[in-house]
Amino acid sequence: MLQFDLLTTDQPRGDYAGSHARRGTLTLNHGVVQTPIFMPVGTYGTVKGVMPRSLEEMGAQIILGNTFHLWMRPGLDVMAQFGGLHQFEKWNKPILTDSGGFQVWSLGEMRKISEEGVKFSSPVNGDKLFLTPEISMQIQTTLNSDIVMQFDECTPYDTKGHITTEREARSSMELSLRWAKRCQAEFTKLENPNALFGIVQGGMFESLRQESLEQLVEMDFPGYAVGGVSVGEPKDEMLRIMAHTPHRLPAHKPRYLMGVGTPEDLVQGVADGVDMFDCVMPTRNARNGTLFTRFGDLKIRNARHKTDEQPLDVTCTCHACAGTSGVAYAIGGRDGFSRAYLHHLDRCAEMLGPMLASIHNLHYFLNLMSEVRAALDAGTFGAFRVQFKADRARGV
Amino acid sequence: MLQFDLLTTDQPRGDYAGSHARRGTLTLNHGVVQTPIFMPVGTYGTVKGVMPRSLEEMGAQIILGNTFHLWMRPGLDVMAQFGGLHQFEKWNKPILTDSGGFQVWSLGEMRKISEEGVKFSSPVNGDKLFLTPEISMQIQTTLNSDIVMQFDECTPYDTKGHITTEREARSSMELSLRWAKRCQAEFTKLENPNALFGIVQGGMFESLRQESLEQLVEMDFPGYAVGGVSVGEPKDEMLRIMAHTPHRLPAHKPRYLMGVGTPEDLVQGVADGVDMFDCVMPTRNARNGTLFTRFGDLKIRNARHKTDEQPLDVTCTCHACAGTSGVAYAIGGRDGFSRAYLHHLDRCAEMLGPMLASIHNLHYFLNLMSEVRAALDAGTFGAFRVQFKADRARGV
Repeated sequence: MLQFDLLTTDQPRGDYAGSHARRGTLTLNHGVVQTPIFMPVGTYGTVKGVMPRSLEEMGAQIILGNTFHLWMRPGLDVMAQFGGLHQFEKWNKPILTDSGGFQVWSLGEMRKISEEGVKFSSPVNGDKLFLTPEISMQIQTTLNSDIVMQFDECTPYDTKGHITTEREARSSMELSLRWAKRCQAEFTKLENPNALFGIVQGGMFESLRQESLEQLVEMDFPGYAVGGVSVGEPKDEMLRIMAHTPHRLPAHKPRYLMGVGTPEDLVQGVADGVDMFDCVMPTRNARNGTLFTRFGDLKIRNARHKTDEQPLDVTCTCHACAGTSGVAYAIGGRDGFSRAYLHHLDRCAEMLGPMLASIHNLHYFLNLMSEVRAALDAGTFGAFRVQFKADRARGV
Repeated sequence: MLQFDLLTTDQPRGDYAGSHARRGTLTLNHGVVQTPIFMPVGTYGTVKGVMPRSLEEMGAQIILGNTFHLWMRPGLDVMAQFGGLHQFEKWNKPILTDSGGFQVWSLGEMRKISEEGVKFSSPVNGDKLFLTPEISMQIQTTLNSDIVMQFDECTPYDTKGHITTEREARSSMELSLRWAKRCQAEFTKLENPNALFGIVQGGMFESLRQESLEQLVEMDFPGYAVGGVSVGEPKDEMLRIMAHTPHRLPAHKPRYLMGVGTPEDLVQGVADGVDMFDCVMPTRNARNGTLFTRFGDLKIRNARHKTDEQPLDVTCTCHACAGTSGVAYAIGGRDGFSRAYLHHLDRCAEMLGPMLASIHNLHYFLNLMSEVRAALDAGTFGAFRVQFKADRARGV
């Protein structure tokens, strides 16, 4: 099932022109999701370095799983035995799975794309494998994810320096549309009780995006994603597609911008009418010692943090910054871990470093979306964006 | 401060001969510790892969820090700024620090031992450094650990195949005694408010152990450790020293067996009169995928776990086995993580694998000591040991 209730949209008011931002609730088989939402990525059935209980504590409402990776390991036999991914990874709230398309596409030379699907060699054991729209639907049905993504071809921005032409982008987008039809047929045949999203492609060409979305809308999916962004294109190209596509999708259905992005990208995406985001950035950057804060980003490896008794973000209530009390440093909380301690953990390559950093970064992204929702509820999203930019520019 | 209250000893009863086991409470500046106790090792100011809150939840009462490692990183300036290790690592319960002696001794060729102390090159940056009894006391005073260990020379069992002779062991033991005096003098001079333990050495020679302990007892330390075991000697040699030394130490003072050992070693150590244990085994083995359970040890990497829906230990209430509910699988709890999931995490080298395994193994050791204490309280330690052996031999 999927039910999307649009609660408010960001209206013009006085000097403020408004935006395409919207506030909604998304009801799925495993629970209700407040939108706009950021979805932590749990590739192999685990959000890297973070316990499920920590995800719940930081307010995660829905997480991702990667169909391709879970198909490779632990494999479908195990997934079937556990009745899907939820029970296996002990996450009882909604899960969205991708189609596996992006991962096989990322294999580069190791895969061969045809009308039927994608032939490739398993990166785990070299087995010859074939992924098709039908097989992707079958796998995702076994995973029992609340949101199933159509199998598509992710149109590259460039291939070894050759920027994708409109002709190439059209051919790719049309293949994805034919695959969308096959996914929908198979999904129905499987009597999958969850929700299947179509994915708009079309590369960096607005006209192709328009064609893609119109044909997908005609197929009447319960939700739509914008794919093929954040694939190596310059930032202004991404922003151009973000400005074009989301708000043209049906207003009464959820919109998901795949694989985006920085905090700034998320806030822009909301203004462009996006409801759902995912990105590996918070967890990946955490493991590399790059921390997001209200007042800008911070590299914990820098020597200047060696003796700093402050937490990463004095306004943050995550476990790393505020400890078990949950009271932010700025209002007197002193239970959090200091930058000096996190710097030390990083220097000693101690596991607790990425553990705390991952909690902090994910909390930052989730809390940012929570603040966005509160601003939309209060009708102050315009003012929120101004403050957000000023805060982030202040420096940490 | 240190106050040790002996609550009960394991008395003969009917056919049961009794043992040297004892139940006590140890009051330190940062709190009360119930003995016998296992102390998790937090080398660099973190018990590897485990959050302080998880340590509290699993019932850890006192943890270790390594003087040598903390002296290298983050260094004494940072430790002094934070007023010691507790505030830096956010652990408000008691901490015991070793003297750094074992670590400099472990440097092998890279160090030179003299009457004055140990000259060595920093393994971090190559700096020429000098560690003496006085400097060890100064560092541990800065760390503000509740229990400070004397600087000693750890007598090796063998050196490149040459088994330490009685003459060599005597010379080493006597050096440690002279260092014990210097430690005591410096500790007093520094007005350290915590408690300094002496360390019995003497290699594998009971007569030397006897001499060492008598002279240390004369110096009147508030507690005593047995050092120089678990340094590569055969198990029966270790058990021989364990049987000899602990119960000969003053009954009204706490006894700490350094660096030991397996669950079986701990239960034997308690029977030999030991109150305190530490070992890296639970966390190190966790990271290698070796799990301790009531019914024997388990290698999570084994293919037989691939589809096993049971937790590691069906009687265990740790977060890995029982989830947030804390209800063991054997009595209907189904919130824990399965062996299949842990096997999968290990196979994918996911950080959550060692995180959950570390929690489980530490919980196992802490819970074992908790069961030991309950048996001593109930006067059933003899029966407990029989059941413990039978359970562990059953197989998992």
